[in-house]
Order: sequence, then structure tokens, then C-alpha cells
Amino acid sequence: MRMSRYFLPVLKETPREAQIVSHRFMLQAGMIKQSSAGIYSWLPLGYKVLKKIEDIVHEEQIKAGHHPMLMPTIQSADLWRESGRYDAYGAEMLRITDRHERDMLYTPTAEELITDIFRANVTSYKDLPLTMYQIQWKFRDEVRPRFGVMRGREFYMKDGYNFDLTKEDALHAYNRHLVSYLRTYERMGLKAIPMRADSGPIGGEDTHEFLVLAETGESEVFYDSAVTDLTFGDREIDYDDKAACAAVMEEFTTKYARTDETHDEALFNEIPEERRMKARGIEVGQIFYFGTKYSDALNAAVDDGQGSKVNVHMGSHGIGVSRLLGAIIEASHDENGIIWPEGVTPFHVGILNMRSGDEAADAACEDLYKQITALGLEPLYDDRDERAGAKFGTMDMIGLPWRITVGPRGLKNGVVEVTCRRTGESEEMPPADAVAKIAKIYEGIA
Amino acid sequence: MRMSRYFLPVLKETPREAQIVSHRFMLQAGMIKQSSAGIYSWLPLGYKVLKKIEDIVHEEQIKAGHHPMLMPTIQSADLWRESGRYDAYGAEMLRITDRHERDMLYTPTAEELITDIFRANVTSYKDLPLTMYQIQWKFRDEVRPRFGVMRGREFYMKDGYNFDLTKEDALHAYNRHLVSYLRTYERMGLKAIPMRADSGPIGGEDTHEFLVLAETGESEVFYDSAVTDLTFGDREIDYDDKAACAAVMEEFTTKYARTDETHDEALFNEIPEERRMKARGIEVGQIFYFGTKYSDALNAAVDDGQGSKVNVHMGSHGIGVSRLLGAIIEASHDENGIIWPEGVTPFHVGILNMRSGDEAADAACEDLYKQITALGLEPLYDDRDERAGAKFGTMDMIGLPWRITVGPRGLKNGVVEVTCRRTGESEEMPPADAVAKIAKIYEGIA
Repeated sequence: MRMSRYFLPVLKETPREAQIVSHRFMLQAGMIKQSSAGIYSWLPLGYKVLKKIEDIVHEEQIKAGHHPMLMPTIQSADLWRESGRYDAYGAEMLRITDRHERDMLYTPTAEELITDIFRANVTSYKDLPLTMYQIQWKFRDEVRPRFGVMRGREFYMKDGYNFDLTKEDALHAYNRHLVSYLRTYERMGLKAIPMRADSGPIGGEDTHEFLVLAETGESEVFYDSAVTDLTFGDREIDYDDKAACAAVMEEFTTKYARTDETHDEALFNEIPEERRMKARGIEVGQIFYFGTKYSDALNAAVDDGQGSKVNVHMGSHGIGVSRLLGAIIEASHDENGIIWPEGVTPFHVGILNMRSGDEAADAACEDLYKQITALGLEPLYDDRDERAGAKFGTMDMIGLPWRITVGPRGLKNGVVEVTCRRTGESEEMPPADAVAKIAKIYEGIA
Repeated sequence: MRMSRYFLPVLKETPREAQIVSHRFMLQAGMIKQSSAGIYSWLPLGYKVLKKIEDIVHEEQIKAGHHPMLMPTIQSADLWRESGRYDAYGAEMLRITDRHERDMLYTPTAEELITDIFRANVTSYKDLPLTMYQIQWKFRDEVRPRFGVMRGREFYMKDGYNFDLTKEDALHAYNRHLVSYLRTYERMGLKAIPMRADSGPIGGEDTHEFLVLAETGESEVFYDSAVTDLTFGDREIDYDDKAACAAVMEEFTTKYARTDETHDEALFNEIPEERRMKARGIEVGQIFYFGTKYSDALNAAVDDGQGSKVNVHMGSHGIGVSRLLGAIIEASHDENGIIWPEGVTPFHVGILNMRSGDEAADAACEDLYKQITALGLEPLYDDRDERAGAKFGTMDMIGLPWRITVGPRGLKNGVVEVTCRRTGESEEMPPADAVAKIAKIYEGIA
């Protein structure tokens, strides 16, 4: 993309309404614009990151054997009355009356509707196990929406639902989700720690939240520092292998890690003192096993192959897709702006022309642009007629992990400069080497 | 995908509520399920086609130089009051009151909000031309929703908006959209004819609708049969070349083709009688040039580089993404079910095991499955323990364009059968040739 043709309204001033850094940088980098309290438009740069995050979530869910589908945003109140949650949900549910005076709502979650789809179509244990998920807009009418996309009213979420014959199978689905979530977050450059949590209005016995450590997190968390050393990495996993998935669950959840809701001071104090950590975290996902809570309420039963009808065991599993942009920025920035991890960066590399209009600089930039594009990567080329200082400021703010700086002086020596946004380290090299270096960085990522 | 693990609730009965064939087949093939009047869940198979259509729309818009972004579904009434459309829109607009008693709405279109984003950020002609678009859920509270996804209440739509300094530039944007739409529909296997139409509540002088001819279409259309011979094909186009885009516009819109709203009997009668066609059509897209209607109402002006402020010239451009599934099925089916064009088929080929449990048949199917998957294509393997007749019925109903049938008898002679869904023609060949044939069919498509 050439910046001269892009819509990238970078703000010079610090937006007053932003209380946390991710909100500020998303506004300043021209990623989002508020349209009403807690409701945002996603400008082209913000949308690009949102889409990359969405794609990673899809890929990892499909690898785990889960089926993507989509449920509507506007649902009838009827099913929610059947489950008993219509009245229980409170003022956060956006209630709507349509032109025929029917009670509708903007769905905050979809246990009822997915269970209705299931009970209408599945009658036999032979169709199990089954996990379906969607990535869809949700609405939660927060009293005081704040922190930009971190606590907005209209938000984008992955919500998945498993249906299993037995508790054992449903716990395997729970473990499978844990594994797929670990992989998902790692691909986004995030360390998200599964912590024992409280199930809240979803209900159920078992639940873990995934938390990204950050000073601005809304949750207080307590953990054994040893959990932060765990990584899933690029190990192979067979999602059908119950023992293998259970082993990952054990590896990642045995050490102490809890939110304040489930914190147990006595247990915590058994950890060696130097490993006892108290911090703040941002919730980026949650998995639940809730047994037959919804299948009981909505009569979702299958023939068990032994002549009996049994209500299915279920769980639900969420990832806050739009919120993840905020969480990633909270975890990865400096005073000059965002630092995108390679897995989610909106553009793979910035090309900064120090002197637009200079024949050699223009030609070298065009050439880099073409070669990087030919690799299947997307460069963002700052070809505007602006001072170099302003261009550096914009590149730092929008946070592409790599930058190639091209100027007449370097070109006289046959070199351009490749800079890592995170470390600030620069290296001079011939343009062809710069292209090769960028290609190597994104091998296996883009 | 193995059918034994998929969620594909094919219905045996003909659904009573379906008045048109696309609605019936989408229900029977387990693609959608109604959740409330005019509101549907997209089951895995339906979602897969929806996503393919969405991807094609994105690709062609990005090629045309248009920037993807996203606006929220719930918007404040304020901007709509500013433009004067809040009261004008009538009962089809879903009006909502939030917990703070603010007037909100579920957006049916987004001229106001995109103009607000524009005016807040763009002040100079240097930032023009600019076209942004989104693919987002919309809501239109129809009195009598019908025809499944063809006239639903919650629907998925691409809406794009151009901002230009002059009328001439805006008309180039109009032509660019026409070209990109022609390409988009052709990739989906559709012949969509641009017809002079009426602008309705969007307003403006110039507008064309894209119509797919089908008996079940809601619009009456009149055209010169010569327009149905036009195809864009795989010609190259430079979207920055105004003359080239204008030439395509002229080629595709000079011959008579109008909806009943703009039909002119006298002009129509000038066409040689044997080429005078009257038919019905399904609207799958529309482009508008409406000048400064919204920039006047919302004060969206830029510095023109000559010392003056001028209100920008705009247009908006829509594609009915969810409706396209219905339109494609109306245009492409037989009495046994859907016939997907290769460009949008949910799976590239079906593998039908005539005798699951037979060692040779199972092994040959597994092998085909692996080899086709290795090509980067997606087979749907019917590995269920069902009668062959039921398997053929399911395959025909869901409409994959190609099927490989594997049975013990053929395997004894070293062959499987490759069948074209559209023609019904079958050909026996060794499994390796079947794989090569499928690979060749999807070269350059998948």
C-alpha cells in the first residue's frame, strides 16, 4: 500500500478521552473512531489487524476440528425465556421491540440459540462429538463503557459450543479448547495464562480465564511465576488424542494461577515466596464446562445407543477478538507508539522514503515495494511529500515491526537501513539483502 | 471434511414454509435455519458459501483500490437526524433505545456514518480520491420477510462509498465499481446485468442495478437480448485508467436494459422485435452517484487546492452478500438440488464411498481424500455407514459440482467414476487421473 492512497488519519494530539495506552494509540494511529459511547468504527488500519486476528482464531479452531458457522445478532426473546436468562441477564442486555411488537434482543452470547439448533437436528450419539463456533458481533449495554475496544458495547467475539455424550468427552472438548487457545494467543505474540476463574452468569463447575499480564488489566491475579515460563511452542498435537490434550491441560493449569474471584491465600502461600506473584491481567478468553445446564433447560437429548435418552454435556468457549487488539497493544508498545508482533501486524514492513522527489530514492523505494509485494508480503510505503521527521513519527506510532529507510546518502553507498521497531536496532545493507531479510523474518508466519 | 464428523443436517421432507426453490434447498441442504421471521442462522455448509462469496467481494474491491473497513451495526440516531433520514426512513428501520434512553438504530446503510468519518479526518483534495467499503450485517424490519435469505430482515451486505473532488472523478469511481462488480459476479458463475434503475431513498441521479435473470425475481425487467452476450471475462483492467473504465461502462450499459421503474416503452420498441426481452430479475447489487447530497447535509468539504472549500462528490455501491446465495441457487439448480458454480462451492469435490466398510473402497477413498487435500483443495468425503442411494441424494442436494464415486466393482478394474453435477455425465478413470482432473478444473479458481 502506498500511504498517499491510503486512509490513515494519524492524530497529532493526544486524545483526551483515552485513559489507557491502547485506547490512545488506536485513536492516534487512525485505527478506530468512536461513533457513540463504547461503539467504534474500524478504520482501514484497525480493520486490517482485526481481520488478521480473526483469521488466526479461525485457523486454530478449524485445526482443532471445530466447525465455523454464524448465528444472527438479533434474536427473539422466546428462547431466553425458556432458559430463564431473559429476566436474569439484567440491563446489560440490549432489548429491542420490532415493528410487530415482538420482544427481540441483541445477543450477548448464544448458548440458547446453538442448543436450539442442536436439539432440532441431532438425535443420536452417532453425531457426537460436535463443536461449532462463530465469530460474530455481540452487544453488552455497559453502564460506563471505557478503555476503547477493551470494554466497548459492540464487540467482536469468538464463541464456541461443544456437545458431548458424556462428561468425560466434554472435558476432552474443554482440554482441546485450552490447547487451541494457547496456540492462538502465541501466534499473536501474546503470553496468555490460563487461570482458574469464576463462571458468572454462564454457569458451570469448570472454567479457566486466559489473562494477559498488563498494568492496566481490570482483574487482580495471583500466580506462581513458573507459569510464565510455559510455552506451547510449535509442538505437534493430535486433537483426537485425549491423553495428549489432558497432559497439556495439566502442564498449564497445575501451577497456581487464579483470578481474585477464586484466589485462595492459604494455597498461594505454599508457593516459595520468591515465585509468589500478584499482578493485574486483561481477560482475553474463557472456557467453560457446564454439564447439562442448558440441555436440561432446553431439552437437548440424544439416544445414547443403549436405548436411553440422555441430555448432552456442554461447554462454551470464548475469545474476545476485538478486545485482543487492545490487549496486544497494552502488552507491546513504547512511548512512541504501538509495536505489532509479526503475526498480526497490519503491514509486514514500512518503506520510508527520506526524500520523496529524489530520483534515486524514489526508484529504490519503488523497487523495494515491488520486490516485497512479489514475495506475497504487504509493505506500507510512505511516499508522501512530508518531512522525514513526520514520516518517522507516523511509522513509530502505527508500529510496523520492521522498517526500511531509504535516503539519497545511503544509496550513494549502495545501502538502505533496516530497523527493528522493538529494539530500535538498525543495520545498513544493500536493498536486495533487505528484501531477503524481510522474507526470512516472515517465513512461516505470513 | 469427513461427513461423519460434519454437522450437515440434510432434511428429508420439503419444508412447507419455502415458496421459492433457493429457500427450500438452503433449508433442505442444512445450510440455514430460521431463528425468527426473516432471521437465520448460517449452519456450517451455508456459512462456508457465505464466506467464499465474501472473500470474492473483498478481493475484487481491493483490486479496484478500495479500502476495507468496518462500521458498527448499532448507531446513534443523531447523525440520521442531521441528514434528515431518521424520520424519512419509516418503519423498516429498527429503532432501539439503550439503557440511558438514547435513541439508537440498527443500521440499514451507512452514508451518514461514513460521511462523518470523512469530514472529521479529510480536509484537503490531496487525500482524494478515496473509496472505503465494508461487509457488515444490516437490518431492515420488513413487514413480511420471505424467500429465505433473499428478503430477510438481518442480512449481510457490502456497502462502499466514494469521495471525490469533482463530478468527473466521482463518475470514474462509479465506472470503477461497475467494472469490479462485473468481475465479482462472473467469478461466482453469475450473469448479472447492469440495468438503469431508480435511486429510491438513497437519492441521486445515476444508478444502475445488477440483476440476475430468474423466474422468481421480484423485479420486472426489459432488455435487449444482446446484453446477455456480454461478458467481462479475464481481460486486464487498469482501475486508474479513466478511459478504460468508461469504455466498459459504455459497452455494458448502452444497450437497452431497464427495470420497470425506469422502463420506457417507446425506446424499448426501437429494438428489433426478436431481441426485445421481458423477464424477471433478482437484484444483487446497485451503484449510485448522488453528487453532494450527503456532503451538503453533513458539511463534508475539502480545500480544493485553489483556495476554496468544496463539498465532495459521493456515491454509494452495494452488493447483497447473503442474498447472493439465494440468487446463485435460483440461477443454478435442478430438481434434485443445488448446482454450485466452482467459484463458490463449499467443497471442491465430493467423494462417495459406495460401500463403507469394504476394505478396498475405504482405502481408495482415504487415498483420494489425502491426495486432493494435498492439492490445497477441500473434498467432502461421505464416509457414513449409509445406503449408496441416500449418499447420492445428499450429494445431489448439497450440489458440489464434481463427485468421485468409489465402489468395489470399479476398483477391481482399477477405476473410479468422476461425475459432473451440472451435466450428469460420468467418466471412469484410474484414481490418479481423477485427482489430476479435479486439480485441473480448479486451476486458477481455488
